Amino acid sequence: MQTIRVTTGRPYDVVVGTRLLEQAGARIRAVCGGDAAVIVTDSNVGPLYARIVEESLAGSGYRVRAIEFPAGEEHKRAETYLAILDAMAEAELDRSSVVVALGGGVTGDVAGFAAATYMRGIDLVQMPTSLLSMVDSSVGGKTAIDLARGKNLVGAFWQPRLVLADVGCLGTLSPEQFADGCGEVVKHAVLADENLFEILEHQPLTYEVLLRDLTYVETLVARNIEIKRDVVSQDEREGGVRKLLNLGHSIGHAIEAAEGYRLGHGTCVAMGLTAIARAAATRDLCGKDVPARIEDLLRRHGLKTRTHRDPDELFAVALHDKKRRGNSIDLVIPRRIGACSLAQTDLETFREIIRDGVDDILEVRP
Amino acid sequence: MQTIRVTTGRPYDVVVGTRLLEQAGARIRAVCGGDAAVIVTDSNVGPLYARIVEESLAGSGYRVRAIEFPAGEEHKRAETYLAILDAMAEAELDRSSVVVALGGGVTGDVAGFAAATYMRGIDLVQMPTSLLSMVDSSVGGKTAIDLARGKNLVGAFWQPRLVLADVGCLGTLSPEQFADGCGEVVKHAVLADENLFEILEHQPLTYEVLLRDLTYVETLVARNIEIKRDVVSQDEREGGVRKLLNLGHSIGHAIEAAEGYRLGHGTCVAMGLTAIARAAATRDLCGKDVPARIEDLLRRHGLKTRTHRDPDELFAVALHDKKRRGNSIDLVIPRRIGACSLAQTDLETFREIIRDGVDDILEVRP
Repeated sequence: MQTIRVTTGRPYDVVVGTRLLEQAGARIRAVCGGDAAVIVTDSNVGPLYARIVEESLAGSGYRVRAIEFPAGEEHKRAETYLAILDAMAEAELDRSSVVVALGGGVTGDVAGFAAATYMRGIDLVQMPTSLLSMVDSSVGGKTAIDLARGKNLVGAFWQPRLVLADVGCLGTLSPEQFADGCGEVVKHAVLADENLFEILEHQPLTYEVLLRDLTYVETLVARNIEIKRDVVSQDEREGGVRKLLNLGHSIGHAIEAAEGYRLGHGTCVAMGLTAIARAAATRDLCGKDVPARIEDLLRRHGLKTRTHRDPDELFAVALHDKKRRGNSIDLVIPRRIGACSLAQTDLETFREIIRDGVDDILEVRP
Repeated sequence: MQTIRVTTGRPYDVVVGTRLLEQAGARIRAVCGGDAAVIVTDSNVGPLYARIVEESLAGSGYRVRAIEFPAGEEHKRAETYLAILDAMAEAELDRSSVVVALGGGVTGDVAGFAAATYMRGIDLVQMPTSLLSMVDSSVGGKTAIDLARGKNLVGAFWQPRLVLADVGCLGTLSPEQFADGCGEVVKHAVLADENLFEILEHQPLTYEVLLRDLTYVETLVARNIEIKRDVVSQDEREGGVRKLLNLGHSIGHAIEAAEGYRLGHGTCVAMGLTAIARAAATRDLCGKDVPARIEDLLRRHGLKTRTHRDPDELFAVALHDKKRRGNSIDLVIPRRIGACSLAQTDLETFREIIRDGVDDILEVRP
């Protein structure tokens, strides 16, 4: 078991280990107090894990209710958020109550936003159950829902009081879901940790490894959380350095949107990461070997790195991305493995970068 | 014109004066920058004042859209909030855009919550047009919407970048709406300013005064904002001293709810203030003359101070108030004119206090 201290605003611990579902009640009691708790979960994760967390919370003296919403990215929307709030009010939660978000990124985002805004903010505990949410969304305090006109258009910065990442939950992911999380793992390595990159080259974080070496998984999840922690603790509200976490995301988000969110987020980040690395190498912003090393590592994690989307279509989609500020966009450029820099880029250059990055990896349509 | 600096988090100015609607564009431009702005207003205030603010913003180079929702306390709810967010997305607001809340307390609360959560928070300018919102809700950063199960159950703390209180707008209020705002004015005086109380005793802030002496109104509005500023700047998130602003509200909110929100907020605060003062005098917590002085001043401002509601009914309603923490409630007790204290009160004592305060002022039903 490893504990990582995050000092963004009020400090909190991220605990990475096994059998944390069973320990949830005692650990939450020690940090949050309060009389009542709700578990927010979706229809995939709820049947697997809600009961054990519920019993643990009840055993620690909480009045508990589980709130389950239909699984799927398309449910990260206002209707789900309002239904959760209504259920919280019905459960008579007060300002001392606790929201436990048990599930993947959608659950963490929507339950986190509900916790951030119920009575103007009550305690939130993140219990991520997917690799993607463990290494990325459960740390850093971003919460959000989608509007019809765009992803994550509504939300709040709201730091959890505690994060419990039970790597034992990863065993119920499909190989594809697990691989999808590796997109952000490789991104973190490219962003800030050459040593992690080399470890992954030596021993990729594959589904087979998951099944036989949970300790290795635990170590790598903890290292990823440290990387994210180090970035977000410098910049809670994404004014500057935190934008580095968007490595691979400007193009990745565009692919995600162009594909109608049918591809996993990590997969789209893998494609975006490959594209930006290739465009950077073309412009001599990084070594010629960098894109190939990145793409190779992504593929060894079972990730697709190529898109057949038209670059100009992706550019058009990217223009709707909320990270745009007027006539420029902040791009994260890999300079070498383990180091990136932020470049304010005018839109025409951004269009060329997408063409360079994506044309280069153009797949023949089936 | 008077400017009051508020230093809760990022400092901002509250400007109190006349002809501020016309100056909105230049003043907002100087503080916020950005390319786009929306004016959020309701169907009462919009037809009166939206056009002039819109022209002022456009004149300062903003791309502007006005978003109007149906007037009324019953529209302070999720549907209105979501409709505003959708309109903001449709107007393609980005992180540098500005939300201008033009109207009374409902507008400030719901537009403020939209600004707090659109893209996880964008700039908010409060332009209160009612006396109640000038002296109370536009300062302090509380935003909220109601759920079916309770008032203000969802919201955020979100400080405005600027508050423009144009007292010229007060002339379009009805005498009843104006008097309603005086409930909070008298509350502020009882809470923190004996001198203000004496000024009001000498010259009440009546509708007749409004029509002939706008400078007097401006001075008193500014003084009220200073009082509120002094309290909230000690306690942005209502952990302690800010609770003093709830003077008269524990019983007042219960009356408001029991009456189905058909009475004005300030009127209910007047009743709650009278009740708690009477109960405090009964318990020798304040001088015997205090409740009579308070009630007399409220009446001279055209406010009702008596309810015919059954005290036990009010107690039952108050139990649903979100300010309750477990088995106690934080009550604000007037100790003398200009000084109050916070008392953690068990629920049975609270019931007796309501009986003492409300029985004493029981009206014969019509």
